[in-house]
Amino acid sequence: MTVYPAKQHFAAVAAHLGASSGVILVNGGETLIHPDSDTEYIFHQDSNFYYLSGIAEPSFAAAYDISTRTAILFVPHVSADEAVWVGVPPSLEEYRVAHGFDAAHYTNEVDAVVSSLKANEVFKLPESDKLRKAVHEARVFKDDCEIAIMRRANQISSAAHTTLMKEAKLGMNEAELRGRFVGLVLAQGCSYEAYGSIVAGGRNAAVLHYTKNNMALGADDVVLVDAGGTYGNYASDITRTWPVGPRFSDKAREIYAIVLDMQKAVISACAPHKQWEDMHALAARVAAEGLLRLGMLTGDLESIVENFVVGYFMPHGIGHLIGIDTHDVGGYPAGTERIDKPGLRYLRARRELLPRMAFTVEPGLYFVDAILAEAKATPAVAQHINFDVVASYRSVGGVRIEDNIVITESGNENLTSECPKEIADIEALRASAYNQ
Amino acid sequence: MTVYPAKQHFAAVAAHLGASSGVILVNGGETLIHPDSDTEYIFHQDSNFYYLSGIAEPSFAAAYDISTRTAILFVPHVSADEAVWVGVPPSLEEYRVAHGFDAAHYTNEVDAVVSSLKANEVFKLPESDKLRKAVHEARVFKDDCEIAIMRRANQISSAAHTTLMKEAKLGMNEAELRGRFVGLVLAQGCSYEAYGSIVAGGRNAAVLHYTKNNMALGADDVVLVDAGGTYGNYASDITRTWPVGPRFSDKAREIYAIVLDMQKAVISACAPHKQWEDMHALAARVAAEGLLRLGMLTGDLESIVENFVVGYFMPHGIGHLIGIDTHDVGGYPAGTERIDKPGLRYLRARRELLPRMAFTVEPGLYFVDAILAEAKATPAVAQHINFDVVASYRSVGGVRIEDNIVITESGNENLTSECPKEIADIEALRASAYNQ
Repeated sequence: MTVYPAKQHFAAVAAHLGASSGVILVNGGETLIHPDSDTEYIFHQDSNFYYLSGIAEPSFAAAYDISTRTAILFVPHVSADEAVWVGVPPSLEEYRVAHGFDAAHYTNEVDAVVSSLKANEVFKLPESDKLRKAVHEARVFKDDCEIAIMRRANQISSAAHTTLMKEAKLGMNEAELRGRFVGLVLAQGCSYEAYGSIVAGGRNAAVLHYTKNNMALGADDVVLVDAGGTYGNYASDITRTWPVGPRFSDKAREIYAIVLDMQKAVISACAPHKQWEDMHALAARVAAEGLLRLGMLTGDLESIVENFVVGYFMPHGIGHLIGIDTHDVGGYPAGTERIDKPGLRYLRARRELLPRMAFTVEPGLYFVDAILAEAKATPAVAQHINFDVVASYRSVGGVRIEDNIVITESGNENLTSECPKEIADIEALRASAYNQ
Repeated sequence: MTVYPAKQHFAAVAAHLGASSGVILVNGGETLIHPDSDTEYIFHQDSNFYYLSGIAEPSFAAAYDISTRTAILFVPHVSADEAVWVGVPPSLEEYRVAHGFDAAHYTNEVDAVVSSLKANEVFKLPESDKLRKAVHEARVFKDDCEIAIMRRANQISSAAHTTLMKEAKLGMNEAELRGRFVGLVLAQGCSYEAYGSIVAGGRNAAVLHYTKNNMALGADDVVLVDAGGTYGNYASDITRTWPVGPRFSDKAREIYAIVLDMQKAVISACAPHKQWEDMHALAARVAAEGLLRLGMLTGDLESIVENFVVGYFMPHGIGHLIGIDTHDVGGYPAGTERIDKPGLRYLRARRELLPRMAFTVEPGLYFVDAILAEAKATPAVAQHINFDVVASYRSVGGVRIEDNIVITESGNENLTSECPKEIADIEALRASAYNQ
C-alpha cells in the first residue's frame, strides 16, 4: 500500500510559507459529542490535518521541523483499560512507518518535543493565518497519490450513480435513491457522503439546496441526483439528471442536451493558463445559444451575454475546487474579489487554471419561480426572455451534469469518465430498469 | 398524520418541575460546520428540544407558559434570497398547526414574547439544571406516539437486519454489510444510523467498541451486527449474531444458545416494579448455568455468582434506556450510584421498571484476551474457569443478541419482534443466501 505523502505535504507547505526554519505544529480533530448525550458525531478529520498526516482518527497531532525536514507524529495513548473496549492499537513505530513520519511520540509529549527542537518560530493552526494560507495554497495542487485517491472516489461514486439509473423505478421515492446511493458507496469503502446528497425529482430540482429527499418520483419527471462519497478522506461530487421513466420527455431532453453541450464545451476548454471565470462565461454563452434555438431567449446573443441573462437560469457558479473538502480551499487567492453579477456572484473560484488543480464542472439550467420573477422585473433581462416558452419547460424543474476533472499539462483528466451522461447511454440504462 | 405531542411533553416537564407558574424556554440545535471548511455535519436535533417541539430542523426555539398552558414555537425567518436556494418554507401558521403549538413567532421575537408573558421565573436549557432533570425524567416515560415511532424504527431496522442475513455471503467484508444496512434504513425513511454501527466478524466481535468495520468475513466465523436506524428522531438499537456460512459451528451454536437463553429469561422477567440491576443479575445467572454445562465454568453456582465470574465474559451491562437518544437519559436518578463490580460497573441504568420505560435487552458473551488474563490473575475468579475450555471457544469471538422493549402494565412489549433470532430461523435465512 502506498504511504500517503504527508511529509511531502509538510515540505510543500514550508515552501509556500517561505520559511527556511521554524516548526509547523497542527492538531487533529477531536470526537464531537451531541449535547446532553453520549452519542458521537461520525468523526470527520480536520481537513488541514489530514493533508499533513494522512491520519483519519481523532486526537492526533503532527509537527515538522522545517530546517531539518523532520516530520513528527503524535499519537494519543490508549490505556490498557481502554484497549479492552477498542482493541489493542498499533505501536508508535507501526504508526510512524504506516504514515511515513520520521519520528513518533505520544500526544502528551507534544510540548516537550517541540521545545527540544529549539525553533525560532512555531507556526500553529488555527492560530497562524500565515500557516493557514500556506496550507490552503499547497492543498490546491494535488500530487499523484491524491489524484489516485480522487480517481477511486469517483469510480465508486460513478458506479453508484450508474446502479441508480439501472435500478430506479416509478413508485420509488427520493429517499430510496439516496439510501441506495449511500449504501453502495459505504459498501465500497467510502467513509461517508462527501456532502448532503440531493435527490430531487421534478420541480424539486428547482430548489437548488434541496435537502428533504423524501418525495415520490413522478412518471414524467427527471430526477436530479447530486451525490458523492468521500474515499480516503477525499471528496467526489457528481451530479446526474435522468428520466424516472425509460425515456426523457421532449422538453427535458432539449434542456438536458443544452446542459450537456455546456459541460462538454467547458471540459474541452479546461487547460493550463485559462481563467476559471472564463469557463463560467463559456458555459453561459453555450447556454444562451441553446436557449435561443429553443426560442426561450430572444434577441442578440451579445446583449444576452452582457446582461447575464443565463444567470437567471444558472444562478450558481460553473464549479469549484475539490479535494479533501468538497468545496476545497484556495478558490479566491488573497486580493481576489467576487464578481457581483447573476450566476457569477456565487462562483466559488477565480484563478488561473494550473496543472494538478481539481475542479468540478457542473453546469445546470433551472426554472426557479422566484428567480424568473426577478428576471421579469428586470427590463434589460426580460427583453430577452419569452416567458411563455419558459412556462412550457417549467415542469422540467432543473437539470445539472457534474464531473470532477484534474488539470494536466496539456488539458485535463476527467475523473468521472465512468459515469454515463450521454442521452443514449442513460436511456439504455433506464430502459433496462424497466425490462428486468 | 398524528401531531407529535410536543405540548403534552411540555406539560409533563412542568409536572416534573413541580412549578405552577413560570416559563420554560428551550433552543433547538444549530447547524455545525467542519472547521476551516463550509461542509456541514449532518444535522442532529438537540434531543431535549426535539422532545419539546417535534422539530427536526435547525435554529428553532420553543417556550411554554406553565400557568396558562400555552406552547409557543419560534421559527427561523427565511429571507426571499435564501428561499431561492432552499425553497419557500411553510408559514408560521402552517408550522404552528403541524406541531400542535398554540402560537408561532419568528425567532427574533423570542425575547419580546417571553418578556410579554411576565413570568416570575424563566427555566432555560442548558442553564437550568432543575429543568434539565425534569426533562430527562419526563423523557423516561414514552407516550403512545413515541412508542409507535419506536415500533416503526424497530420494524425498519429489523427488516434491514433480516435482509443482511438473507443476502450476506462468504467473500463479502464488514463494510459491505454496514453499507447495505445503512442504505436500507435510509431508504425506508430513517434519518441516519442511531449510532456507529458495529459489524464485527470472528475475533473482531471480541473488540467491544469495534469501529473499523472493514475486514473480510471468514467462512467459520459468526458476524456480530449491532446497528439501528433513527426514525422520526427515535433510535433503534438491535444486535444480531449469525454464521457467515449457512450454519453455526458447534462452538458458536453453544455460545449463541446460552446468550439467547439469557435474553429470553430477562425479557420474560421485565415487568413493572422489577429492578434493572436484577435483570443484569438474572442474565449473569443464566449464563453461569450455561457455561457450567459447557464445562467452561466449574464449581459452585452461588460462588460463581458472588465472584461476578460472568462479568469477565459479559463486561458490559444488560441494557440501557432508549428513546430519542440511543443511550437515553434518566438511567441513574439523582443519588443512585454505579455498582463497582465486573459487568455491573458499566450498567447504564439502575432503577425500578415502570410502564412506558423503553430498554434494550442485550446480553452477550465474549472471549476478550485482556479480560481473560485479568480473570486468570484473580484467584477467586480463576478457580471457577477452565481456561482450556475457554481457549477452545476463543475463535467464536463474541455473541450478542439485542432487542428493544417497552414496559407495559403487565410485562413488556418487544419492539424488535420482527427480527429473527431463533437458531433455526437464522440458519434458514443463511441457507437461503447460499441457495440463490
